Amino acid sequence: MTKHIVLLPGDGIGPEIIDATQQVLETIAKQFKHDFTCETQLIGGSAIDSVGTPLPDQTVEACKQADAVLLGAVGGPKWDQYPSHLRPERGLLGIRKALDLFANLRPVKGFDSLLNASPLKQEIIQGSDLIIVRELTGGLYFGTPSERLANGDVVDTLAYQRYEIERIIDKAFQTAQIRKKKLTSVDKANVLESSKLWREIVEEKKTNYPDVVVNHELVDACAMKLITNPTSFDVIVTENMFGDILSDEASVLTGSLGMLPSASLAENGVGLYEPAHGSAPDIAGKGIANPIATILSAAMLLRYSFQMENEAEAIEKAVEKTIESGYHTADLHVNGGKQVNTKEITKMIIKQI
Amino acid sequence: MTKHIVLLPGDGIGPEIIDATQQVLETIAKQFKHDFTCETQLIGGSAIDSVGTPLPDQTVEACKQADAVLLGAVGGPKWDQYPSHLRPERGLLGIRKALDLFANLRPVKGFDSLLNASPLKQEIIQGSDLIIVRELTGGLYFGTPSERLANGDVVDTLAYQRYEIERIIDKAFQTAQIRKKKLTSVDKANVLESSKLWREIVEEKKTNYPDVVVNHELVDACAMKLITNPTSFDVIVTENMFGDILSDEASVLTGSLGMLPSASLAENGVGLYEPAHGSAPDIAGKGIANPIATILSAAMLLRYSFQMENEAEAIEKAVEKTIESGYHTADLHVNGGKQVNTKEITKMIIKQI
Ligand SMILES: CC(C)[C@H](C(=O)O)[C@@H](O)C(=O)O
Ligand SMILES: CC(C)[C@H](C(=O)O)[C@@H](O)C(=O)O
Repeated sequence: MTKHIVLLPGDGIGPEIIDATQQVLETIAKQFKHDFTCETQLIGGSAIDSVGTPLPDQTVEACKQADAVLLGAVGGPKWDQYPSHLRPERGLLGIRKALDLFANLRPVKGFDSLLNASPLKQEIIQGSDLIIVRELTGGLYFGTPSERLANGDVVDTLAYQRYEIERIIDKAFQTAQIRKKKLTSVDKANVLESSKLWREIVEEKKTNYPDVVVNHELVDACAMKLITNPTSFDVIVTENMFGDILSDEASVLTGSLGMLPSASLAENGVGLYEPAHGSAPDIAGKGIANPIATILSAAMLLRYSFQMENEAEAIEKAVEKTIESGYHTADLHVNGGKQVNTKEITKMIIKQI
Repeated sequence: MTKHIVLLPGDGIGPEIIDATQQVLETIAKQFKHDFTCETQLIGGSAIDSVGTPLPDQTVEACKQADAVLLGAVGGPKWDQYPSHLRPERGLLGIRKALDLFANLRPVKGFDSLLNASPLKQEIIQGSDLIIVRELTGGLYFGTPSERLANGDVVDTLAYQRYEIERIIDKAFQTAQIRKKKLTSVDKANVLESSKLWREIVEEKKTNYPDVVVNHELVDACAMKLITNPTSFDVIVTENMFGDILSDEASVLTGSLGMLPSASLAENGVGLYEPAHGSAPDIAGKGIANPIATILSAAMLLRYSFQMENEAEAIEKAVEKTIESGYHTADLHVNGGKQVNTKEITKMIIKQI
């Protein structure tokens, strides 16, 4: 198959991990006889530096034309004092909205051989395998008004249209159907009107997915249970702001933050794939970044945007074998094992494909 | 001193733990020669059952007249299907607003002898001692509009008046001053306008507290760091919704959820004290509930509302000694130790005073 991928390296370690992942994608193309063309575009702080805006029109156009988008990371202290419309994060929020990437999928699964890097006790974290389905283009992130009022007061708005809730709930049920068929819907229905509608829609939709067992959890209770009983979850679905907090919370449970991929999907359009971690400006340019979260994001890209299940699994197995062979990058605080840099671990993964 | 306390037992285990705590308060009164009068009022589900509303006017009036309020817990499955204005939580939200209890203080400190009940590894949790200062009467919990629109869409509002942010930030700085002088302000300033104002006000206020070191953390990053590095925190200050999530997340870290007190304070008025845990309907009426979080809340009451530091410490030391002697209630999953019921542990604590 012929496919066109837009690469958005972004800031910090972004260019290094995207470079590593591009090599992996080329290996897959060769091995499985595909034709992947890649094109690099600007986003985030580096776009601000080059062309004065975190999301150039040219980037949006290129992404709209592409079959899929692979992003590194955006942000860094360099741009922290910039006015808010000129900050790296605006590029990320803007591309999510422009491509209508309403469904953010964040799998959290530890590698057995890395579990001793978890802050949790082995018996608590072992066997956990969950995915957070986060609504990504609504709620507090995009509601209006969002402004300082003349009298000095301030307001943000948590708004949802009914169809926005419906489509993410559908996505979550469908995700549960191809997993362990267990869905936890997270809200704050004892306080928020938006959560009450959310809960109602889950109740309506569940009759369409009789094979999925669904339960409701309050966001504060969920924040506790992720720590005390992470293995009790399969699929978690929640709105944008709650999803931001809970998915980051969940991401550190296994001790493998540098290994966690994510996918942001539109209804029938292009998908954007990126590591769950950030731009790590402190280690940028040193060649020691862990590329695995991005490489696994490329596997998600192959699976969700190109329907290439075998190719996706080839990458995932290669990563697993490499990790199991005891090699890892400096970010992983595991006992024992051999430490390698970005280039070396990438080579090892490619060799396993 | 003569002081009048309103007791709000509420639902589930509420009556049992309030009863235990009242005995402790009576012991303190006798020992330190105070005159504490107690009066019991209705709130939550039991108020709905008795008089048809979760927050009777009489309760509000009694609390306004009191020197301090001690609450058990509200809520339970019995009232889950009630319309939202007739739910137990409305009683709690209503009394917070009626008494202008804008500052919720939630200390999180594990007992050394219970640390093996923590889901975290010993080396991560050991030595942690933090307090969350949560804004309690603004933000998404009380903003308007909060409603279903005619077209089926829905909206909630995160609104803050400038003085509301100022007074909670001041409270947090003052709290830091009598602790380790380290303040972490948590927001989502890369997305929300309310967070930008919040951050600005922290920056303005910090010149008034030159002895306190302050830093800013994004809410998603804070949710991670609470797990990976809980000992790095001293005082955390944040808005209502973030505080709800983060304080519950933090509450399970030490494995001592049944031991964590809280205080909700007004500017110059009455304070409301309650355990951090809920109404535990599954064990209500069995006499096995852990009263310690409520007993420690009474210690906070003596300290913050009555300025009785020695009396507060007498309770805290008595609890510590009792725990260290190896006795605990059924909720604590510690290795070893002897299990006792509510009455027995209360007696032991009283004996230590
Ligand atoms: C950078 C920031 C705006 C973004 C978000 O909050 O969505 C990030 O935290 C994420 O989770 O992808
Ligand atoms: C019961 C509920 C409304 C309440 C809240 O969200 O504030 C509770 O979770 C709390 O933290 O005290």
